[in-house]
Formats: sequence, structure tokens, C-alpha cells
Amino acid sequence: MKKFSIGVDYGTLSGRALLLDLETGEEVASASYAYPHAVMDSRLPSGRKLGHDWALQHPQDYIDVLAHTIPELLQKTGVNAADVVGIGTDFTACTILPCKKDGTPLCFLPEYADEPHAYVKLWKHHAAQSHANRLNETAAARGEAFLGNYGGKISSEWAIPKIWQVLEEAPEIYAATDRFIEAADWIIWVLTGKESRNACTAGYKEIWNKNMGFPSEDFFASLDERLRYVVREKLSTDILPQGAKVGTLCETAASFTGLTTDTSVAVGNVDAHVCVPAVGIDGPGKMLAIMGTSTCHMLMGEKESRVPGMCGVTEDGILPGFFGYEAGQSCVGDHFAWFTDNLLPKSYVDEAAAEGISVHALLRRKIEAQKPGESGLVALDWWNGNRSVLVDVDLTGLLLGMTLATKPEEIYRALIEATAYGTRMIIENFRENGVPVDAFYASGGISQKDPMTMQIYADVLGMPVHIAGSAEGPALGSAIFGAVAAGSENGGYADIFEGAKKAGRVKDTFYEPIPANAAVYDELFAEYKILHDYFGRGANDVMKRLKQIKIGGKKHG
Amino acid sequence: MKKFSIGVDYGTLSGRALLLDLETGEEVASASYAYPHAVMDSRLPSGRKLGHDWALQHPQDYIDVLAHTIPELLQKTGVNAADVVGIGTDFTACTILPCKKDGTPLCFLPEYADEPHAYVKLWKHHAAQSHANRLNETAAARGEAFLGNYGGKISSEWAIPKIWQVLEEAPEIYAATDRFIEAADWIIWVLTGKESRNACTAGYKEIWNKNMGFPSEDFFASLDERLRYVVREKLSTDILPQGAKVGTLCETAASFTGLTTDTSVAVGNVDAHVCVPAVGIDGPGKMLAIMGTSTCHMLMGEKESRVPGMCGVTEDGILPGFFGYEAGQSCVGDHFAWFTDNLLPKSYVDEAAAEGISVHALLRRKIEAQKPGESGLVALDWWNGNRSVLVDVDLTGLLLGMTLATKPEEIYRALIEATAYGTRMIIENFRENGVPVDAFYASGGISQKDPMTMQIYADVLGMPVHIAGSAEGPALGSAIFGAVAAGSENGGYADIFEGAKKAGRVKDTFYEPIPANAAVYDELFAEYKILHDYFGRGANDVMKRLKQIKIGGKKHG
Repeated sequence: MKKFSIGVDYGTLSGRALLLDLETGEEVASASYAYPHAVMDSRLPSGRKLGHDWALQHPQDYIDVLAHTIPELLQKTGVNAADVVGIGTDFTACTILPCKKDGTPLCFLPEYADEPHAYVKLWKHHAAQSHANRLNETAAARGEAFLGNYGGKISSEWAIPKIWQVLEEAPEIYAATDRFIEAADWIIWVLTGKESRNACTAGYKEIWNKNMGFPSEDFFASLDERLRYVVREKLSTDILPQGAKVGTLCETAASFTGLTTDTSVAVGNVDAHVCVPAVGIDGPGKMLAIMGTSTCHMLMGEKESRVPGMCGVTEDGILPGFFGYEAGQSCVGDHFAWFTDNLLPKSYVDEAAAEGISVHALLRRKIEAQKPGESGLVALDWWNGNRSVLVDVDLTGLLLGMTLATKPEEIYRALIEATAYGTRMIIENFRENGVPVDAFYASGGISQKDPMTMQIYADVLGMPVHIAGSAEGPALGSAIFGAVAAGSENGGYADIFEGAKKAGRVKDTFYEPIPANAAVYDELFAEYKILHDYFGRGANDVMKRLKQIKIGGKKHG
Repeated sequence: MKKFSIGVDYGTLSGRALLLDLETGEEVASASYAYPHAVMDSRLPSGRKLGHDWALQHPQDYIDVLAHTIPELLQKTGVNAADVVGIGTDFTACTILPCKKDGTPLCFLPEYADEPHAYVKLWKHHAAQSHANRLNETAAARGEAFLGNYGGKISSEWAIPKIWQVLEEAPEIYAATDRFIEAADWIIWVLTGKESRNACTAGYKEIWNKNMGFPSEDFFASLDERLRYVVREKLSTDILPQGAKVGTLCETAASFTGLTTDTSVAVGNVDAHVCVPAVGIDGPGKMLAIMGTSTCHMLMGEKESRVPGMCGVTEDGILPGFFGYEAGQSCVGDHFAWFTDNLLPKSYVDEAAAEGISVHALLRRKIEAQKPGESGLVALDWWNGNRSVLVDVDLTGLLLGMTLATKPEEIYRALIEATAYGTRMIIENFRENGVPVDAFYASGGISQKDPMTMQIYADVLGMPVHIAGSAEGPALGSAIFGAVAAGSENGGYADIFEGAKKAGRVKDTFYEPIPANAAVYDELFAEYKILHDYFGRGANDVMKRLKQIKIGGKKHG
């Protein structure tokens, strides 16, 4: 009898569920559901206005995703609920909410429905920047060792700054909160009726380390005395590795999904991280780049290395038994979109419209035949700062080599090439710090839709680029984890390695470096690196000084 | 009885004549005539095709300008020909042609009418680049002292490379040529019937120096033995200072212009240089910037200093009795036009069209209120290389400081600011090398039409910017020189200093530096200078290496 699992991917605006045939590894069906409240960045449902840089979500939307998509999958495939042996999920992160001790979100309680801090703080809620800054200053002053696990800096997007913001701005909400919990873990609570915590978000977003644990109570007290016991009071030190089974579906969840209470549920996970087994990666040395508006790089190693400038390292944080490394580039698709939004000439827009193609497709057509180096341009991809390896949000963009003959499509391509150089910097940085990178995989929208960019990446990296076989990498990865939670005794997979082998996949065709191009890109990357180090490592801090002048001008002008 | 003079300005596409009232300094009338042959850059009148980078003109057009505009001036003003005491002219340079010994251009002779090398080589004829390169290499290898007068390099636009090209490619034309002569001097031959040569083109374009003379016969022979006697055979060592009188109108010229044979004719001159007295500059320390697609800087000093990176220094080359210095920026209006031609988004083009304003006016409106430094951007204005002070055509553009919030108008303004920083570099370079710059004047299209740019220049330079009072600076300057040729005894001016005082003028309103802006621009200029020196003086030759890669790719790709 065929067995199945379901993966549910919680994105920024919608959830997407996928039904996986565990024997063939085939994606049988998928279904999606857009969050009715989407991202609340200006008002609460009550109409109450939100501050600058806020971004909230409503947890009811997450439940509604399950209640809509899973019954739809069963209905349209005719698969028997009893044959769905496991369910896995993944979430954006750090997306976090305050709950009561039974898992009820504070915003579900009428007395808090009009209170912004009672809602889910989405990953891109950026209103805790001052808390992150103070946290980093304090940690650096105290010489806290944990900073080394995060390339030296904690982001304002992560859990502790967000929790601290609640405490400072709404101490009554902080007091009423029994548990601060990642949405990734909260949805598992909804499914199983049990609280659990996963190593991935704990490690990457909550300053937890398998050996070192959380920061000390003294450290939290040095931020604010009221935070001293935040871990024991509102978080948890009971952290499960990725791939673990939390339990089976509770009756409530079985009832609204149409599944049975025998269905195993995997521990919470993160959208980027579940993509790793979805492309068949089952061990160290194989980097996965998830390429969208920004790029997230996942890599496993056999030992814990302090790699300067990475986003984080977490034992078991990607696959159990390995040290999972994360790095990132904060401006990739955003980089290209900035160009087309701001600097695309009218004639090109008109040309694309007349042909009914996207401006990106038009630009690619105009430039894809150009040889590397022929434009004479090189750029630093720092329009949104540098996440890895310099971890410096105050760096800004650079474009060099323009002449009066420089065409728009040449600049567009130079921006693409710059992101490829940025990826190569990250890879070389890992290698130089003892973490091998032997193979390169790409998933995400750009990898599926932009062959020119992927060929450039192959040529710049000097490595073949393998492309995710599924356009729904996160949902597929979650389904694999769901099958692992079920285990082979229930018709699932014995472990994530079997899962990666049976259901993970890349496309048959991949991008092979073209030796002549790679040779030129070696020269161009050498130039990129000189500029990267000159502007990024202190020889000329002009970008920071310009930022200071800019801020000063706005303040005093 | 009122006396008048006429100035004729020969531009790239047309000639423009102006009638000046010598008592009031008033411009009584002007008239223009477009060259029927315009610029011949693809074919001769016979249909014969021209090579890449060629740019020729037809000398008959120059005569036709006189024959059309001067009668028109007399006719529409009713001024009596006998009251026009002098005529002065100015030309683009180096614009040069081969003649017979009576002044007949070779291209007027039927046997040469189909021969490209028999025509006028316009200033922007760039097909002698290989000759310029070889000349510079040879001169540098021989340690020729004259290089120091030209910032170390002779341009392919100048006379000797162009003459050498004739010799190599059409030795029969070279042999048939009795005189190679600047169009600036040839038109005086037409007017007076006498050959003459002016210090300005000889000094700036023909490697002549009042003390050193021309390069040695040995030097010319080292280029090509056949060039050994080029100076004595085809040029002239009889060079007149600017402001000198060559003679009076010959009968032929009097007849086709409608003037009398009593009219004095000034020695030939150059369009940029005649603008100096036209703004009232009569001595050292006052820089005039003629701002168009590129900028030409004129400055006089009391002594001959070797200023590294200037275009040239010529005694009597601007006004008699002073050392005339020339510097330049090769990309100013072209810089802004590159941006609007290539990177202006559709919405802006549509917005400007809907309002019936130019895209430049729209961009100014969007950005003029922004405070200096508020964009966080800084650029190096090297899209067309750097003419002064680095004299390096292989340098290319740089733009730094972009974020995802950077708007098109911010980039546009950064390009404008970069040209202002470039001007400040030139001024500081003069000062550091012993040539004072105490005042700044601007003429040319940008100075008349773009108040935002002129205010930025005032703020960046920290000096008031005076604006030429006439929109026809060159023709006015030529008319002043014409009156000087006539002399006070004929109702003209005693000398150029009296002429500058009586007829030269600036607008009443000028641009005064705004102290708060100037303070910020001091900081930004310091950043520009660091980048200028880093990329321009050998610390990081990335721009040249990228150019090599580019050329290599095109050759071998």
C-alpha cells in the first residue's frame, strides 16, 4: 500500500501544502492558501495604527492554511487519510509570538486583541533595531563568546531583540506572556497539542548552542534586570534536533485537517533549511543557495568552526549529526529589481511591453551573448549592506568602469555578476576557515527562471551549479521531514538521509562552467576581492563616512 | 561717429557672426549659417566612404559663412560698412587642412576632390590615434622636454598626429601639400590674402613654444624621416601673438562680405580662448570654464609653471603678455546626457513629456532641494577618461554609495557633483603648482541654463561663480579681438585689456557659495580626492586592468 506525507511551507504571504508519494518520491499534488491578514504593517484588524518598521501577522491565518489546504489535497487526489503517515512544516524565521501556557496566542484573547505586541512579529519586523544595537554593544563589551557563532552580530530580526522590545514597550504583555515561541514551533503545538522547540530556530535565531546553551542569566540581566530569567520563564531549554518526531496529530488538528491521529508530526523547521534534503543533499560540503530577493546559503560541516562573517552555526540545525552553517547575501533579486524599478529606460520598457516579455527577459536577451569582461564593469553588491562575510549593514553599493558607451544591460549584468562574486567570497571564506565546499546547488525563483544568471554563477564559482528539481522546495523538504518523523516502521523514511535520497532531487540538466568564461571571471573576481577588502575591511571607510554625512545632513540640515 | 567690429565664431556645425558697438559694448545683431556639408564622417561629397573615426569638413563652408552672415548683419542693422573697423574670428581646434602655397585647399582642386586626406580634418577626427600613441612613445623615450608643456601627452586631435596620418596614408597628398594650416589661420588667409599663424593654435595644438620653438628636426625624423623638415617646408615659425593685426580685408573678401578694404583683421584664434576677454577677464588668477559637453578651463599666470596634468601652457596664447594655461574635463554635459539617454526611467520621461519640460529640468526639480550629502553618493567623473589632472584616457567612471532607496535623480546629481569635484581638483592642482586661481567664471550652455549645477559649483569650489554676460561668448570675444586689430587710431580698442573692460561682461547675478553646503562639500570633496588618488595614481589600477580584459575579450573571444 502506497504511503504519503504532507509538507506545509509557511511563507510571508501564504501557506503551501504538498502531498508526497513516499515510494516514488513524486509530488502528487499541492494546494495553497493566502493569509487573510497578509502582513500587517500599518494597522491592526481593529484599525489601530502601527509604528514605523513594524510587521505583524495573525496566527489564525496559520491554522486556516492547514484547514484549507490539507482537506483539498486529500479531496483532489482521493488519497486515504490513513495513508498519510507524516506531516512536516517549515516557517519564515525569526517569526515569533507570545502565548499563554496552553499555547493560546495572546492576540486570541479579547483583552489583548487591540494590543500590537500581542501579535506575531514577522521576520521582517524591523522595529527592534535599537534593541539589537544595544544587545550587540553590551555583548561585545562583555566579551560574550556567543557572538562568534553569529559572525559577531545579532540581527534585529531575531528573537531576543524582539522579546526585549515587548518588555520595554508593553511590559504588561511581557508579563502576561507565558511562552515566547517561534511560529515554526507554535504550529507544531497546534498540530500535536504539545509544546516543542527545534534546534534550527533556537540555534540560528535565539542565541542557543547545543554545548553552550543560551546566554547566561547575567547577560540577560545586563540588558534589563527583568530579562534575567527569560529563558527559564518564557523560552525552553528542551530543544529537539531537526528530523525529530514531536508526536502525532491531536484530535482537534485531525478533525480540521481530515487526517488521522496516527499521523506523525515532525519538529518545527525553517523554510530555507528544509530545502537542503529537498535537493538531495545528505552530508557536508554541498552548499545550497536559496536565491530570491536575498540569498540564503546552507552548508554542513563535520566540525564546529568559527567562520568569521557567517550568519550562524548550529549543531543538528540543518540535518542531525552535522554542524549546519548559514550565510547570506542581503541583496540579490532586490538588486536586479532596484535597477529595473529605477533605471530602466523608457525604450526598453516599451520594447518589452510590445513583445509581451518581462523587462528581465528583455535585458537578458540584450546581454546574454556578451562575453565576461566585455563591459569593463565591476560592482560591489552592497546596496543592502553586506550580510556575509563582512556583516556590515553600513556598507553601500559600488559600480566601477563606466564609459559613455556603457549600456543599461551591461550595468544589469554587472549587478548579477557582483552577486555571484559575493557568493564566491562566502565560499572561499568557508574554505579558508576549514569548512569544505565541494558542490553547489541552487533553489528559489531565480534558479528556476534565469538561466543566464545561473550560467554566470557556474562560471564565476568554477563549479557546476545543480538546480532544485522541485519548484516547491520548502514544501517538499517539509514533507520529507514529515516522513522521517513517521519512521520506516510506519511506512515513512528511516532517517533524513534516506528521505533526501528517495525524494530529494535536482534537475537533470545543470550548469557547467565554461572554461574560457571561468578564466576571465577569475581575473574579475580578483578585482572584486581587492575592492571588497579595500572598502569593506577598513582601508577606506568612505561608505560609512558618507552614511554619517547623510544622517548628519538629515538631522541638522 | 559710432564704430563697430564683427566677430565670427566657427563652431562644429555652423558659423555665427556678431556685430559689436565699440562704444557701448552692446551686441547689435547676430547671424548664423549652418555648414552645408556639416561634419563628413561617413562619406565624401563624391560618395567615397570614410574610415572609422574620421571627421572631415569642407572649407568652402567657412567662406560661405562669411558671405552669408556679414551682409546679413549690415543689411538688418543698416550699419555702414565703412564703420566696421575690425573683424576677428575664432575656430574649433585643432581643425587643420592642406593647401597649396597660394592658400587654395587641396580639396578645391579637381584632381583631389575625391581624396579624403585633401579635406579639413575636424578637431574630432580621431583616426590618428596610432600616430599620437607612437609620437608619445617616441617623445617619452627620447625625453623630449616639450611633453612637460602638455601634461605629458600629445592628443590624437592635435596637428602633428594628423599630419603624420596624411603622410603615411596618402604620401602623394602630403607631397602635394605646400602648407598644413589651422582652419583658424586659413580663414584669415581668405580674409586678408596673407598667410599668418597664431600663437594659440601653434602653442596648444602644434607643439610650438615661444622660447623652445617646435620640436627638433631630429625628433620629427625619429618619427619618420620624411617628416624631418615638416616645420620649415609645410608649417611656419612666424607666429603672431593673440590680438595682433594681420592686415586688412583683401579685395575679394571685401567684395563677398560687403565690407571695405580698410577693415582690420585680427590673427586667428580659438573658440574657447576668445571667450576670456568676452567675460571681462584681463589678467591672471581668473579661471574661465567653458561648460558644454566637455569643459575647457582657461587661466592666465605671470610665469611659466610646469603644472602636471594640464593640457598646455602657451605664452601669449590667451592674452598677450601672460602665460595662458589650459585644462579640461572630457565629460561634463556628456556625463549628464549619458545618464538621461541610458538610465532615465519611463515614468520620468512620461512625466517630463506631460509637463512639456526637458528631462533635465524634471530631474533638477526632483533633486534641487536635497541637501549636499543627503544621497550618500559620490562619483568619479571619468566616463570619458580624465583629461586634467591625471591625463589618462584609460580611467573610467565610478559611482559609490548606492542603497536600495537610491533614486535616479540622486545619481544624476552625483554625476553633476563629480564634475564640480573634478573642477576643484584642477584648481587645487594649479594652486599647488604656483598658478593662483582667485576667481571663477563660467560660460557655455550649462552656465546659462542650469542654475542648480552652477550653485553646486559655487558650493563645491567655495568661490563665487560669475556667469558670462553674453550667450554668444566666442563671437563677442572675436569681435573684441577684431576691434583690437583695428586699434584706437581707427576707432577700435587700444589693446585687449581695454576691449575686455569695454565689451566683456558677466551677468549681474552670480552664484555665491552657501556656507553650510560648502562645509559639507569640503567633506565630500575629501572623499572624492581619496578615491581620485587611489584609482588614478596607481594604488589600484583596476580600471586599466578591466580595460585590458575588455580589449582582450573582444580580440580573442
